[in-house]
Amino acid sequence: MAEFSLIDLIRTRAATQARDDVVLGIGDDAALLQPPPGMQLAVAMDTLNAGVHFPAGTAAADIGWKALAVNLSDLAAMGAEPAWCTLSLSLPDGDPDWMIGFLDGFLALARAHRVALVGGDTTRGPLSVSVTVHGFVAPGRALRRDGARAGDTVWVSGALGGAAGALEQWRRGMAPGQGPGRETRIDPALRQRLDRPLPRVALGRALTGTATACIDISDGVLADLGHVCAASGIGARLDVDALPGREALRPHFDGDLLRTLQATGGDDYELCFHRACGPGRRRARGRGRGGRGGHPRGRDRRGAGRARFRCRRRALAAGAHRP
Amino acid sequence: MAEFSLIDLIRTRAATQARDDVVLGIGDDAALLQPPPGMQLAVAMDTLNAGVHFPAGTAAADIGWKALAVNLSDLAAMGAEPAWCTLSLSLPDGDPDWMIGFLDGFLALARAHRVALVGGDTTRGPLSVSVTVHGFVAPGRALRRDGARAGDTVWVSGALGGAAGALEQWRRGMAPGQGPGRETRIDPALRQRLDRPLPRVALGRALTGTATACIDISDGVLADLGHVCAASGIGARLDVDALPGREALRPHFDGDLLRTLQATGGDDYELCFHRACGPGRRRARGRGRGGRGGHPRGRDRRGAGRARFRCRRRALAAGAHRP
Repeated sequence: MAEFSLIDLIRTRAATQARDDVVLGIGDDAALLQPPPGMQLAVAMDTLNAGVHFPAGTAAADIGWKALAVNLSDLAAMGAEPAWCTLSLSLPDGDPDWMIGFLDGFLALARAHRVALVGGDTTRGPLSVSVTVHGFVAPGRALRRDGARAGDTVWVSGALGGAAGALEQWRRGMAPGQGPGRETRIDPALRQRLDRPLPRVALGRALTGTATACIDISDGVLADLGHVCAASGIGARLDVDALPGREALRPHFDGDLLRTLQATGGDDYELCFHRACGPGRRRARGRGRGGRGGHPRGRDRRGAGRARFRCRRRALAAGAHRP
Repeated sequence: MAEFSLIDLIRTRAATQARDDVVLGIGDDAALLQPPPGMQLAVAMDTLNAGVHFPAGTAAADIGWKALAVNLSDLAAMGAEPAWCTLSLSLPDGDPDWMIGFLDGFLALARAHRVALVGGDTTRGPLSVSVTVHGFVAPGRALRRDGARAGDTVWVSGALGGAAGALEQWRRGMAPGQGPGRETRIDPALRQRLDRPLPRVALGRALTGTATACIDISDGVLADLGHVCAASGIGARLDVDALPGREALRPHFDGDLLRTLQATGGDDYELCFHRACGPGRRRARGRGRGGRGGHPRGRDRRGAGRARFRCRRRALAAGAHRP
């Protein structure tokens, strides 16, 4: 299938998510967009490569979903409202069936978050998907990495380690001597975590004005919490055995491997956020899930709010860790 | 070199082009940007893959330059003022020398156009560069593909076929039986056209309010003029022997190959634009280069303004070709 036929296919399918602020969408040299007055733009760009970010046999629809999900997760971590995206696809061939499947997954998530696909390109090359997302956030309301303070409580929005567990099972199935049928060795619930991550967009928006810092967990909570600590000039103590999500992993993993998957496994795309721990907050925390005053009101409400570890002042001079 | 060291390197180098409208640049989950009040955003995204869009041995600095240039060319074709970009790099390894070279080329062009690099990512994978650019244009002033009218004159901003000539020489050098030293077989002037295209940003901005339609020549003037005609519901007659830029090609090519290179060769990144041909315009055109009234005032002035062919009404019903 030639590039222009692919682009026509994308344009036709993408028309299902219209937005009034898209002045000109797919089909010209650039998209024309009208930002809302007074708002700031949050812009993130992430790439997924075959064999690196997803197993080679992953369904096209799952690749499409995930390519957008990991980007929306970045907007969620900023507390931004998603609006527009562009897509650049490198394909070894122009298989229309693959393309239709890819768009099914990509556009299903786009519609769920009212995101318009407004441009991009298709090129020949090894399978690779780059997405740029644009969202809106009011000035001063974005959730940044550098706002955490010593004494804050640290929260995560859901189970950790599931995606890494699926990858671990996939790697074992790929080991020499293993035959076909390895796909079935991956626990479907874990595979769902790897293939169809749910970006915590509503939670992120609900956290603006409430959280002091936020990051999405793409590199593992140990690394990502470390990024927040480095940007904020603080430290944190992590109780790995208290991380949520062990139940889903226990049938397959235990001991140090289970701990490693939970602490260092990427691809969960949950949010890790800090909240100030004043006198009122302290009381609220005593109720277990953040209490009435501070509980996020997004659609991710039930998954959120597990306080598991707490910041303390770093032994090194805080100033040395300012960005 | 680990991903985070690469990102630190990029962040440090990118800091050389600061802009007041960048609230938060590289280093968080997303960049935060403040669009100017009342303006529309023009957004384009293009990917370059090794061995597809540039020869495998291309210098890192040239790849960096070109990755941004092809995107700025899209903004030029819309008449937009460039402002911000994001960069996603897939690299087989994290060679810091390659990275420094790449950034040299990329950021030299970014500085020339006051473009701030505000985010993106680096991943492991076959060499591939995706860039998203953002620019500003006043409502109703963008140069679109669908505004050309029957009777307009068609213009190109400079020489055509040079980049395709370099690629042709490169392909010959790569033929079986050819040894090392093939790089020197490529005419340096043609190679410059391939490796360091100059996006016609100033010309594009000068054309807003003057041109009726515009496109950048990335797929060859025949195909790109065809895109404008299809979007505008008109036709055009192209005199291939009158295309500018033959002189640079004549030492190496002639006959049908020369014509093919000029008409179908991509990668020149000149602008092809339409201008209305009213009574005043007709007089101006008689003076050869567009006359006083309509001559673009950008820095690309000398390269622009060669009227070579003219639109005529398509034999088919015009309405059938409306997008």
